[in-house]
Amino acid sequence: MAKIHGLKWVVCLASSILINIFFVLNIDLRRSPELTWSREAAVEAEAVAAVSCSGHGRAFLDGSTMEGIPACECNSCYGGPHCSEFSPDGCPLDVDLGDPLFLEPFWMQHSKSSAVVVAGWHRMSYSDGIGSSILFSKELTNHIFQLHALVGNAITKGRFILFGVGSSQLLHAAVHALSQQGSSHPACVVATAPFYPLYEFQTELFDSEDFKFQGDTTLWKNTSSANSSTNIIEFVTSPNNPDGRLTKPVLQGPSVKTIHDHAYYWPHFTAIQGPADEDLMLFTLSKVTGHGGSRFGWALIKDKDLYQRMLMYLSLNTIGVSQDTQLRALKILKVVLKGGGEIFEFGYNTMKARWERLNEILSASRRFSIQKLEPQYCNYFQNVTGPSPAYAWLKCEREEDLDCHAVLKAASIIGRKGNLFRAESRYVRLSLIKYEDDFDLLLHRIKVLVSKEEGSKNM
Amino acid sequence: MAKIHGLKWVVCLASSILINIFFVLNIDLRRSPELTWSREAAVEAEAVAAVSCSGHGRAFLDGSTMEGIPACECNSCYGGPHCSEFSPDGCPLDVDLGDPLFLEPFWMQHSKSSAVVVAGWHRMSYSDGIGSSILFSKELTNHIFQLHALVGNAITKGRFILFGVGSSQLLHAAVHALSQQGSSHPACVVATAPFYPLYEFQTELFDSEDFKFQGDTTLWKNTSSANSSTNIIEFVTSPNNPDGRLTKPVLQGPSVKTIHDHAYYWPHFTAIQGPADEDLMLFTLSKVTGHGGSRFGWALIKDKDLYQRMLMYLSLNTIGVSQDTQLRALKILKVVLKGGGEIFEFGYNTMKARWERLNEILSASRRFSIQKLEPQYCNYFQNVTGPSPAYAWLKCEREEDLDCHAVLKAASIIGRKGNLFRAESRYVRLSLIKYEDDFDLLLHRIKVLVSKEEGSKNM
Repeated sequence: MAKIHGLKWVVCLASSILINIFFVLNIDLRRSPELTWSREAAVEAEAVAAVSCSGHGRAFLDGSTMEGIPACECNSCYGGPHCSEFSPDGCPLDVDLGDPLFLEPFWMQHSKSSAVVVAGWHRMSYSDGIGSSILFSKELTNHIFQLHALVGNAITKGRFILFGVGSSQLLHAAVHALSQQGSSHPACVVATAPFYPLYEFQTELFDSEDFKFQGDTTLWKNTSSANSSTNIIEFVTSPNNPDGRLTKPVLQGPSVKTIHDHAYYWPHFTAIQGPADEDLMLFTLSKVTGHGGSRFGWALIKDKDLYQRMLMYLSLNTIGVSQDTQLRALKILKVVLKGGGEIFEFGYNTMKARWERLNEILSASRRFSIQKLEPQYCNYFQNVTGPSPAYAWLKCEREEDLDCHAVLKAASIIGRKGNLFRAESRYVRLSLIKYEDDFDLLLHRIKVLVSKEEGSKNM
Repeated sequence: MAKIHGLKWVVCLASSILINIFFVLNIDLRRSPELTWSREAAVEAEAVAAVSCSGHGRAFLDGSTMEGIPACECNSCYGGPHCSEFSPDGCPLDVDLGDPLFLEPFWMQHSKSSAVVVAGWHRMSYSDGIGSSILFSKELTNHIFQLHALVGNAITKGRFILFGVGSSQLLHAAVHALSQQGSSHPACVVATAPFYPLYEFQTELFDSEDFKFQGDTTLWKNTSSANSSTNIIEFVTSPNNPDGRLTKPVLQGPSVKTIHDHAYYWPHFTAIQGPADEDLMLFTLSKVTGHGGSRFGWALIKDKDLYQRMLMYLSLNTIGVSQDTQLRALKILKVVLKGGGEIFEFGYNTMKARWERLNEILSASRRFSIQKLEPQYCNYFQNVTGPSPAYAWLKCEREEDLDCHAVLKAASIIGRKGNLFRAESRYVRLSLIKYEDDFDLLLHRIKVLVSKEEGSKNM
């Protein structure tokens, strides 16, 4: 009896010791290596990420706090402490900005691999310490080159690369540098309407003696000949902002220089035709990964002299680009590359579905039309892909709807006025790349507008 | 006997169970809350921070890798895989840049509180979503205001604030905006020599019809009267870069506008005389916390119209400032505020000690002299504080040493040429704010130079 009793004890003790061993191993397995200085920041970030905003908002680490806890920042027309209150009536919907928020869900799904810890002492210097007064990360450069190789949208071999505070900064760095290279002054800066308003606004802002904005290329097509001595700088945006069309330069000749803005030349938005191989190409992180807030772009440049002039501009304008941003961009691109293009599947599927839903609703309208885009063979997906543009270039067809922006505004849709793109004011650009909530509300409001049409096709 | 035996078992089992309980509690205490998505990034960052670089370098998360591990980036004249090899002979020492690396040890000591985790989905938008196309963090604004209140170096009440990509961007935003406000064009941009070269370089770079760089204020002091209609923009840097003196505007009158660059108006570098109360004041994170690589500055502006013009410039130039940087700046300032000014003790003590060591060596020299600065009462420390400037403004006193930069370069000291500051070329600016290693080597080399002087005071 005592023996059996003793056996029970042995079993209990053995079990308990086994549990001890389990704990010891478990700690080693799960904790190894133990975190020290980064733990506090990690705990803090996870606490903020855990704030519930009902899927219609999010709390940020640097958001305004309510009782010590960062408050939810809600999507348009959502409110309340947890963004659970939807009040669509009359609430203005901003679809003006090209804010690439459609990719946020992708990054939430990949939060584990895409987070980055910035140490308090991370890259306090703005110099590379070996002669340049600004520091461009070599690792980031390598990853950008790998990204272009993966997508097949640009030749990087034999190119210089420059980083900018968004491609916005690079646009003007390019105008500045190209205008210095010409023999005649001022250089004429042109683009083909409808074109991205920043080209004009920036050029006029700087009000330089070296360049003047001169409007649409069509005015120059006939007057400028190959022998013209007027120094011309043409912006070519492909795919075009606002209408998503793939474009080519309109002007040619020895005195014409071209800035190729390829912000949207990614599989999310267009079929990839093949690697772009131009002398000066601009890209932005904003439209590849969705990190518009990070303000990071890059230029691929063939000519060394042009590269050096642009570098000088960037050095004097802002002494380079934030090291915090360069670190984060590197992490983000590592995820993109490791995923082997998963983000492009996600982006393309999202944008294509949005385009189809919008088209379906507008197919019933006689009052509103949007640009027609054809499916094309995409070298990246190795398939014919449907249109999936970043913007709808909407036209008010009724004769009396001269101010299309006002027509939409009356329905609480805030688009971007067509005349800002040097087009008629019966055009409006609608951003399709914002949150799903924004897009859903946009569709809803357009649907209401269409349903009110007399003689609309679905009535 | 069986009873005693049983008791032993009970004691063993009880101990084992207690150990189990300890583990369970321990896990809860030490792990709570359990990390999920941020853990991988934290482990990665700590692994890089643990790379040994012998105290003469550091490895960064985005550094070049050697066999998968980020490599050490060594201080000047240090080399080898762990920066343990010191090869001073002939190795050029860059003391040209005003890279504020003297504060790195402070941030290494405060790594726990100053780290920040950036989620992959952190602030992808560049807009505040409520009307402005650029987003300035409200929390960061509040913390900047608290910082000025703590130090007592600027009035923030009734001021507008703008963030820039370093104060570099704000310098030109200010020139641009002020030139638009004047009645006569172009505005004349001036400063008092010796002055920070970027004022001139930026103004000339943009080559605008709205403003021209017109050199030194002394040329304008006599010609410009209070009734002059010439629109003048004067840069006033206090403390001055390069010589550390507290300065006042030279020009006055209804057509004179002043940009007060207070980059160095912090207790590290100067006695705080009281809160600056000017219409337009510029500051930069770089010279307060040492985060030059983050490219973050701010402007305090009294006039609403000026604020709006500068905001327009920042919107068109770069569409604002990186959200990654704003997040990090917030964390960094939280540490500064929580420490109640500990960083200023550290910074001041470091800079004062460097200045004293440099003076001691140069006191033996007849060939080289540096600026004389007097101790002053500091409102912040509530005490008389000795000079602790960011730069030495060194003069070659020998008649034949017309090119002082070349004299130092022959001794492998790379300073910044005096003529860049519109001073004589027998002046050179030496940066005293870099790593301790840089400063030690600078002293060593100056000591060697001084010891070679014929008739030097210590011979």
